[in-house]
Amino acid sequence: MSTADVGPVFTLATGPVGSTPATLAALAQPVLHHTDPAFRALYAETVALLRSAFGTSVDPVVFPGEAVVGIEAAAAALIGPDDVVLNLVSGIYGKAFGQLAGRFAREVIEVETAYNDSIDPATAGEALARRDDVTIVSVVHCETPSGTVNDVDAISRLAAARGALLIVDAVSSFGGMRVEAENWRGIVIAAPQKALGGTPGLSLLHVSEDAWRHVAANPNAPRGSALSILDWRDVHRPDRAFPFTPPVSDIYALRSVLQQYLAEGPENAERRHRRAARAVRAGAQALGLRLWADHGALLADTVTAIEMPAGVDEAEVRSVARAESGVVLAGGQGALRGRVLQIGHMGPAAYPLSPVIGVTALGRALRRLGVKADIGAAVEAALAAWDNGDDHGGPDRTANTEREPQ
Amino acid sequence: MSTADVGPVFTLATGPVGSTPATLAALAQPVLHHTDPAFRALYAETVALLRSAFGTSVDPVVFPGEAVVGIEAAAAALIGPDDVVLNLVSGIYGKAFGQLAGRFAREVIEVETAYNDSIDPATAGEALARRDDVTIVSVVHCETPSGTVNDVDAISRLAAARGALLIVDAVSSFGGMRVEAENWRGIVIAAPQKALGGTPGLSLLHVSEDAWRHVAANPNAPRGSALSILDWRDVHRPDRAFPFTPPVSDIYALRSVLQQYLAEGPENAERRHRRAARAVRAGAQALGLRLWADHGALLADTVTAIEMPAGVDEAEVRSVARAESGVVLAGGQGALRGRVLQIGHMGPAAYPLSPVIGVTALGRALRRLGVKADIGAAVEAALAAWDNGDDHGGPDRTANTEREPQ
Amino acid sequence: MSTADVGPVFTLATGPVGSTPATLAALAQPVLHHTDPAFRALYAETVALLRSAFGTSVDPVVFPGEAVVGIEAAAAALIGPDDVVLNLVSGIYGKAFGQLAGRFAREVIEVETAYNDSIDPATAGEALARRDDVTIVSVVHCETPSGTVNDVDAISRLAAARGALLIVDAVSSFGGMRVEAENWRGIVIAAPQKALGGTPGLSLLHVSEDAWRHVAANPNAPRGSALSILDWRDVHRPDRAFPFTPPVSDIYALRSVLQQYLAEGPENAERRHRRAARAVRAGAQALGLRLWADHGALLADTVTAIEMPAGVDEAEVRSVARAESGVVLAGGQGALRGRVLQIGHMGPAAYPLSPVIGVTALGRALRRLGVKADIGAAVEAALAAWDNGDDHGGPDRTANTEREPQ
Amino acid sequence: MSTADVGPVFTLATGPVGSTPATLAALAQPVLHHTDPAFRALYAETVALLRSAFGTSVDPVVFPGEAVVGIEAAAAALIGPDDVVLNLVSGIYGKAFGQLAGRFAREVIEVETAYNDSIDPATAGEALARRDDVTIVSVVHCETPSGTVNDVDAISRLAAARGALLIVDAVSSFGGMRVEAENWRGIVIAAPQKALGGTPGLSLLHVSEDAWRHVAANPNAPRGSALSILDWRDVHRPDRAFPFTPPVSDIYALRSVLQQYLAEGPENAERRHRRAARAVRAGAQALGLRLWADHGALLADTVTAIEMPAGVDEAEVRSVARAESGVVLAGGQGALRGRVLQIGHMGPAAYPLSPVIGVTALGRALRRLGVKADIGAAVEAALAAWDNGDDHGGPDRTANTEREPQ
Repeated sequence: MSTADVGPVFTLATGPVGSTPATLAALAQPVLHHTDPAFRALYAETVALLRSAFGTSVDPVVFPGEAVVGIEAAAAALIGPDDVVLNLVSGIYGKAFGQLAGRFAREVIEVETAYNDSIDPATAGEALARRDDVTIVSVVHCETPSGTVNDVDAISRLAAARGALLIVDAVSSFGGMRVEAENWRGIVIAAPQKALGGTPGLSLLHVSEDAWRHVAANPNAPRGSALSILDWRDVHRPDRAFPFTPPVSDIYALRSVLQQYLAEGPENAERRHRRAARAVRAGAQALGLRLWADHGALLADTVTAIEMPAGVDEAEVRSVARAESGVVLAGGQGALRGRVLQIGHMGPAAYPLSPVIGVTALGRALRRLGVKADIGAAVEAALAAWDNGDDHGGPDRTANTEREPQ
Repeated sequence: MSTADVGPVFTLATGPVGSTPATLAALAQPVLHHTDPAFRALYAETVALLRSAFGTSVDPVVFPGEAVVGIEAAAAALIGPDDVVLNLVSGIYGKAFGQLAGRFAREVIEVETAYNDSIDPATAGEALARRDDVTIVSVVHCETPSGTVNDVDAISRLAAARGALLIVDAVSSFGGMRVEAENWRGIVIAAPQKALGGTPGLSLLHVSEDAWRHVAANPNAPRGSALSILDWRDVHRPDRAFPFTPPVSDIYALRSVLQQYLAEGPENAERRHRRAARAVRAGAQALGLRLWADHGALLADTVTAIEMPAGVDEAEVRSVARAESGVVLAGGQGALRGRVLQIGHMGPAAYPLSPVIGVTALGRALRRLGVKADIGAAVEAALAAWDNGDDHGGPDRTANTEREPQ
Repeated sequence: MSTADVGPVFTLATGPVGSTPATLAALAQPVLHHTDPAFRALYAETVALLRSAFGTSVDPVVFPGEAVVGIEAAAAALIGPDDVVLNLVSGIYGKAFGQLAGRFAREVIEVETAYNDSIDPATAGEALARRDDVTIVSVVHCETPSGTVNDVDAISRLAAARGALLIVDAVSSFGGMRVEAENWRGIVIAAPQKALGGTPGLSLLHVSEDAWRHVAANPNAPRGSALSILDWRDVHRPDRAFPFTPPVSDIYALRSVLQQYLAEGPENAERRHRRAARAVRAGAQALGLRLWADHGALLADTVTAIEMPAGVDEAEVRSVARAESGVVLAGGQGALRGRVLQIGHMGPAAYPLSPVIGVTALGRALRRLGVKADIGAAVEAALAAWDNGDDHGGPDRTANTEREPQ
Repeated sequence: MSTADVGPVFTLATGPVGSTPATLAALAQPVLHHTDPAFRALYAETVALLRSAFGTSVDPVVFPGEAVVGIEAAAAALIGPDDVVLNLVSGIYGKAFGQLAGRFAREVIEVETAYNDSIDPATAGEALARRDDVTIVSVVHCETPSGTVNDVDAISRLAAARGALLIVDAVSSFGGMRVEAENWRGIVIAAPQKALGGTPGLSLLHVSEDAWRHVAANPNAPRGSALSILDWRDVHRPDRAFPFTPPVSDIYALRSVLQQYLAEGPENAERRHRRAARAVRAGAQALGLRLWADHGALLADTVTAIEMPAGVDEAEVRSVARAESGVVLAGGQGALRGRVLQIGHMGPAAYPLSPVIGVTALGRALRRLGVKADIGAAVEAALAAWDNGDDHGGPDRTANTEREPQ
């Protein structure tokens, strides 16, 4: 089966999320040798663009390896045998990070909330007050499977007050929501294949100066390894060499998506994602579905998690949506498998008609599986929400009012 | 600086080595989501093609991460705390592997030869006779910096007789020289960006059934990590999921280069590389240069290492060749830095005019740096060697006759 | 302004109609020299594929020049100073052809119907009966601006009975509706950029053997000219040379779209276009709009012409649809300018969600211009029509019931 | 046969001449509808870039149709039934133009020189003096088959003095040699697929204001036809519509090659072509071959015509060069067929190693056909000429000294 067999494919998943023609053209450029001065220049330019995108004065690290690799590398670098990690858990990704951190830390403490809720910063603050030996606070900005975000600004202030460093998984928010890389001192991990609309295969790491010092002091931080962020620090400088060949074509694509992002402007990109999010949520609710996020949770602008009606398997819904409508949705993660699917509205999937395409495909699939769904109402709701979607700037809170107890 | 500024670029380096138009077209295909059935089908087809290319009945692993990552992952998986590794060293890459193996093994024993020579299988056999507790033998098939190969067939027979498993770095030979993946029991590591003409970002692992058993029994084999080959075993099967998103565009490119390789036929590809190798060697010698490989060493068909005349820095030569002729050569590695450069003749760089392009650029650069070089003679020698280059099948032995003692 | 600035573009116009990733990859192949054996082979293969697509035993002509050029060339070749042409007019394109024919013919007779109707074959038969000196009958298969088709099967039988040759403009039907090239004796003109989803720049000419004889006998048929189809006859044969360089990249694209078309199968392609047509019509009517085609006219499966409400300029509607929704519609032709727009549902624009995208964008634009439009109902109607859209094979007749007199 | 089967293809022909990666990426952009504002903007930008490349204040015409079509259209537009054309013939192309002009003109007078020579402006002046009713002077700037140029500056002064307009075929010179479009009053025809390195399918017409007046006054100038340049005048303006769909992908490519040309700078591009020309000539002569151009003829910087030794068929030479070396040469034109081939050194084929590639392939092919050829000497001569190739600005004159009478 090739893409040509099945007509246009609309990827409304949680990354990769499709790609613009400009990005695809970048991918088709010749595969240069990594020591070629033309590639060295391309790489240095890409790092400079990423610094602009992060809005920082620190040279970021373009790390070879998909976001999951970058998160592992960041944890391995920052968390040493003397560190106590406060891991804030509001979903599957946060939970998994705690297990990862446990390999490296002296101790991992967790504050956990329901997976359809966001971390209450006050609770995090109390945990920090109880344990003044916490050196690192870890948090997922956007919990993709849940479609929720955490208030990292507030959490970063708490950590800073205690002198703790942060590890922030901003993979599925960066490029579509505000990420304060320079203020969130520690390591912020982003990736190209989410709201930037790039390719998987790279992690984009913002490491603050004090985080670099912490890494340098960590005797267990990987060195001479595929997991070593130290090896890749400053390799864009003319006097440095790559530890091994970076994925050349992905670097072309990254340069291109960063150029596109900066040309659009971060604020415009955020506004676009916010409108798309509101449109998808409104559309899903008009289909008669409930958002997974519970009352009061902070909602992501890049992805919406939707609970399936009782008796409907989200995997089946996605399969039908792909086969019938050419629309790729996401789902099937951990404890939410079978119950919750996600519509991604990131990057090239966050434009006015994306929510229409998403809710139409979802509604068609539900009907095929015997569930009533008012697609017309959903389309209308999505369009109305897009048109009214730009009133303020922060993430919305869930407005599901009548959820029954789980 | 873009490639357009500097005219055509001829990449005669040691990987990446350029790419055919078909490969670039594959790279420009839409970035599918990894759960998209279209991508699942693409991935499964790619694994099947790779199995054909390996000529094996075992499903290989397409591992996300450039060859260096794949080698680290293979070592981490296979070498456990009870293993004694016999590491055969004939160059920089072999030496580095020994250090890597040391992180995982109970003990690493080394047999080392000069870096311009090949391992004498008899010496390896003696080492195995001395130490019957050796469980793993590691060897680099093609020592890229030296332009030499080792006789892995002979070594594999010795290992098999002792019940030891192999780790073979066939990264810069696979696709251009015969690699007996199924006979070389253990793990064979290849990569797309060498003689296949693909992109960096993936490792191609052939793991024999008994090697898989050895890995499964290794308590320290990475699991739930970017370095875990176990996590990626059999992920092409419909009932399996990817541990994380594979580099989608690189998979497209890999499928394409495997299709191209199989359409040409492995034997034709090998013949082409052999002819290119002979042409480059003849050309370099006609320029008045010496091969780095010493008298009697086995020569690679994919890369030629050339010693610079006294007083000439190989890095300068490469810089001039790139600036003046648009030709990218390789060099600058370890102890050979400054003295030895490599002309790669792999994949799209192993055609009749590649050696002409290579020796012309090299000759021009030498002249610019004050060295006499008979480019006309070099071109004639290269063409003659190409035309006569197909008389037998195995790797050549060096015929430098008058090398002085080092 | 680049396409990247404005998000995804959905081209639901009347050609070009967008392109699949496979087609774009074909366009990016190296621009070969036209005498290169690789190009000669590509060209010959393309002509063979086109012959299959035409379902004919006659080698067709791939003529350099967009469809309008091909139509002019066909007319100039076939219509000589002794010919009497019966031109059947049911729309703007048919009318224009009569003017063109007048440059070449002894006399042009016209049978004309309203531009929202189809030719009644009986009327055409009467005209033929009145004038037994008619040698050529010309007809437009799909009148793009009107969204109507003519019954060329019936007309071809009438012509054949009289020994007259046909000139059929099948440009916007071929690839999406049944075209009986071999039975429609004379010249049938098609093009890649319509239902095949290719690029503009070529005309695809099917010339029957007796038509070739007629051309050869025409003293005024262009020879040694850009308008000469004689010059391009059989240039795919090894012993022939091109009169001038064909558009190399368009040939690559043509080969690709023909491969895609034949892989899908003509019947499947027709069914897909028929369903899309029904969906768009149902959606437009549910928006409260009227089809342009009058009661009883035969409707095209590839394009739908829609009348705008009084006081609404179709050009404005299209401008808003493009700016707000990224959707390109067509319109603005001749006497229909300002009143009638077209939604194209050809090639890559004839998939389940294309009608949804089209009617949503249209409805949004109407609202913005102050017209009430029930987008939800339109989407539902479009989806229902797609799902029920496959009951029989021939073109539908218009079912507008309450049209008031014009 | 695909390009992948045969390894790298080096197109050293006379157009198309290959393409840069940037150009190929441009070709792969989505096929927009011609009324899409994004395409309208692209088109207008392209016309503006072309005006810069022509160095003129007049908006040029981007005419759909390969150069041969553009020349026919220019002749049909400018030459009316009252015009007397002085056609200057120094080769096959000039001769063919005379036949074309004869279709439109009251009378065509010819001044002809040997096809291996250039027009002597004095002779042209005498002809003008004899016939003061000449209204149009036609001349080919670069006679591709002969590898020669004519002194259009001198000829344009003579024409201007008489009030005659020019038609200059600058197709194979523009982009590689100085073309004074604004001074050469009349119509200058260029094309993308030659020294600009673009695609065939468009003609680039510079029409001076008085030429436009002459066209407007020509009652026979095509209107409403594929051959009408009037129809395409000023279609880049927002208030104008295209007569028919322009070749969208070729417009993308044209924009790209113009951007590349202007970024390099016309003077740099000219210098590069001049050096390539000198290198190819020196190389060919060192192979023991003679330039076709006779003693004293002005030589083209974009193409070199080379006479084959007695008994050697240039078609066979080209066939062997393609099959053995992947190098495409040109030849086979008119009276020179079988005797003279051309090496093109235009656009992407005019870089330091292009001459090396060309003479190596040529030399190899000659040897295979039994002709002695010193390839080494040819490569050395080509490199030396490139390195010394930049001493002055005008076209060289042939220095074949010992040609025997033909």
